[in-house]
Amino acid sequence: MRIVDIIDKKKKGLELTEEEINYFISSLVDKTMPDYQASAWLMAVWFRGMSENETALLTKAIINSGEVINFESLTDKIVDKHSTGGVGDKVTITLIPLLAAAGIPIAKLSGKGLGHTGGTIDKLESIPGFSCALTVEEMKSQVNNIGLAIGQQTGNLTPADGILYALRDVTATIDSMPLIASSVVSKKIAAGAGNIILDVKYGSGAFMKKPEDAVKLAELMVKIGKRLNKSITAVVTSMEEPLGRAIGNSIEIIESMEFLKGNIKTGDIAQLTYDFAKIALLQTDKFKDEETALNYVKELIHSGKAMEKFKELIKAQGGNPDITDNYSLFKQPSYKVEIKSDKSGYIKKIDAYKIAYGCKLLGAGREKKTDDIDYSVGVYLNKKSGEFVNSGDVICTIFSNNEDKTELCKKYCIEAFEYDIEKPSPQKEIYDIIKP
Amino acid sequence: MRIVDIIDKKKKGLELTEEEINYFISSLVDKTMPDYQASAWLMAVWFRGMSENETALLTKAIINSGEVINFESLTDKIVDKHSTGGVGDKVTITLIPLLAAAGIPIAKLSGKGLGHTGGTIDKLESIPGFSCALTVEEMKSQVNNIGLAIGQQTGNLTPADGILYALRDVTATIDSMPLIASSVVSKKIAAGAGNIILDVKYGSGAFMKKPEDAVKLAELMVKIGKRLNKSITAVVTSMEEPLGRAIGNSIEIIESMEFLKGNIKTGDIAQLTYDFAKIALLQTDKFKDEETALNYVKELIHSGKAMEKFKELIKAQGGNPDITDNYSLFKQPSYKVEIKSDKSGYIKKIDAYKIAYGCKLLGAGREKKTDDIDYSVGVYLNKKSGEFVNSGDVICTIFSNNEDKTELCKKYCIEAFEYDIEKPSPQKEIYDIIKP
Repeated sequence: MRIVDIIDKKKKGLELTEEEINYFISSLVDKTMPDYQASAWLMAVWFRGMSENETALLTKAIINSGEVINFESLTDKIVDKHSTGGVGDKVTITLIPLLAAAGIPIAKLSGKGLGHTGGTIDKLESIPGFSCALTVEEMKSQVNNIGLAIGQQTGNLTPADGILYALRDVTATIDSMPLIASSVVSKKIAAGAGNIILDVKYGSGAFMKKPEDAVKLAELMVKIGKRLNKSITAVVTSMEEPLGRAIGNSIEIIESMEFLKGNIKTGDIAQLTYDFAKIALLQTDKFKDEETALNYVKELIHSGKAMEKFKELIKAQGGNPDITDNYSLFKQPSYKVEIKSDKSGYIKKIDAYKIAYGCKLLGAGREKKTDDIDYSVGVYLNKKSGEFVNSGDVICTIFSNNEDKTELCKKYCIEAFEYDIEKPSPQKEIYDIIKP
Repeated sequence: MRIVDIIDKKKKGLELTEEEINYFISSLVDKTMPDYQASAWLMAVWFRGMSENETALLTKAIINSGEVINFESLTDKIVDKHSTGGVGDKVTITLIPLLAAAGIPIAKLSGKGLGHTGGTIDKLESIPGFSCALTVEEMKSQVNNIGLAIGQQTGNLTPADGILYALRDVTATIDSMPLIASSVVSKKIAAGAGNIILDVKYGSGAFMKKPEDAVKLAELMVKIGKRLNKSITAVVTSMEEPLGRAIGNSIEIIESMEFLKGNIKTGDIAQLTYDFAKIALLQTDKFKDEETALNYVKELIHSGKAMEKFKELIKAQGGNPDITDNYSLFKQPSYKVEIKSDKSGYIKKIDAYKIAYGCKLLGAGREKKTDDIDYSVGVYLNKKSGEFVNSGDVICTIFSNNEDKTELCKKYCIEAFEYDIEKPSPQKEIYDIIKP
């Protein structure tokens, strides 16, 4: 078998066999195939796509390129939730303590995020002392003890995905449906979960701009799950504007804790967390109907059990649990600059991309894996879509450690806000749910 | 400017600017762009193509990536003839002494061939002592002295083409019209000729399988020439069956000399050489009408002037001119095996690809630049299409140095011959001529 023939076959739009896909992935990982052949193949896939069968075979080959975690008797019960990424998306952080409090074992592996803010791991590590550097054994024992663990994905899992992603990033081949699907699903399956809930975003702040494309991607991932005997639910949600009010790292943890304490009962974060929790409770057969599930979830918050579980998580992973009652224990930014509106009206829209860009400028995210993140910076949206603003009202607050960057960020924040004289109709958070 | 954006633009089918193309090629040559980005771009070009303007800009950028030879006052007069390559194609060798004898200065640079037999240089170097390792200064002085020089292309000319070609070869992106056109035309222009005659092949033994595709490629190359102020004529010719009777290295030189001596007056090699010579004589304004040009060409052969020029070339480049009268001075093969027909009938077709494959098996060509060529081996077609064969007649002769390889080659040779009970109508050698 020759790699050039595999490239040629894909270039011509023919379907690759399991043997060919396995050979491609093993040659990628053992470095017998040069990167320039891999990238030519990726571009051919961008143009020709892959069949559902090919995508499942690719996913399987990526899974088998490295270690596969096995939680033994827990595997079928364990839930993992993943989001394709969005601005201010903290629903993983609000959801997992809630599910763990409901008795659903959670073992989540996450990667270091590249983007406008850190990923879930970075956000959690903004809690002083908190560490996600757990071994698989440590994760297993923590899941057994408190029902919840969050670890950092290492190179042992799906190494092929790491190599492919790095190549896609520099060859304009990120936006390919089979490549996105196989990347996401392979990582989740290799991480050992039996039940996977995927949040597939669409909109200005997401890869997929149109909801129809997000639905296609969601359907593809659910189908791959079926072919690989995993239960995957994919929820298609809007990412036209930031989720919640906090965009950054530590300020997103604070907002998450406010939700878990029961201080945020409405709005997008509350709604999405409730919805995802219902899906997880039904998918794992905890409840049969949505209403009972929802009441149960609300009671876990009201009773303090959800917040207690989050405190247990912080403690188990080396963080200071006192932070839950004393937010000043987070690293504090030097500047808190309030941005005031120069007009009156309803907020019609807040551009997720512009707010994200402003946060990146402040240092809330990283471009390269080796970049440092400033946990303390970010943007807080004092006003969200649908709310009325009088001229002079604070619309958002910038948390920063640099005066020049604050000014630049301010420009993007002001541009992000769109006004209307009429109250806009509320946005639907969930566009579609694809069940296994 | 970022390479990933240039890849993305081409991927989306947008037209690249001169600045972007120049940046891509300079980053390729100075190695600031990794090969995996170049190959992703090549695959995107394979899918999207390039406009005529983009292809001309790419050609220019490849020319400017290295040295450009300048023959000063001779430049406008110098003719270079190039073939996209075919089985048994020795028309460059028959043509250039003829044109030089007609007073047209010829300075031809050629690369070491990869394929079933050697390239023009390899064939000439089968003459003991003959060397194409000439410096540019040596070429200039030889053209001034005898009107004819043939040198080996070095890395100083169009280095970008060398890198791109090597990548295309292993990423299934050879068969892209703008990439073929820019590669061929850039090399010819950088080699310093003012008048370029291109033989664009189609058929089973060529890149382009259909004549319409060969015409498109020919038209594109002539148009690029116009945009870069060079006079290019492209002749579209058939490569369904081997050209002439000899396929190999030294045996092709012998067949060429037989033509130059006037011993081969008809058939494809004679016809094509006459036709190309007429085109060159008309393109360089030596004659106004075809008939006078043709008579002049035939007289150059009849008078011995053409053969005399070839002898001068051999002498000037270190070869033994006695070989022209004594073919036994060539390295001789150990085996000469005659293949006999087991049936009677007219030869309908001889598959160029199969004969080529047989020659490659014998060692007549090379796969890698570092492979050695066996000059003495090859296949001689005792019968050509349209000729009648009785059962037991010799249809071809294998020249070989290895018994096992002879047997394998024999299998392919026998398969290559197709018979018919009726005499097939003669094939048209020239399909189309695209003038500047």
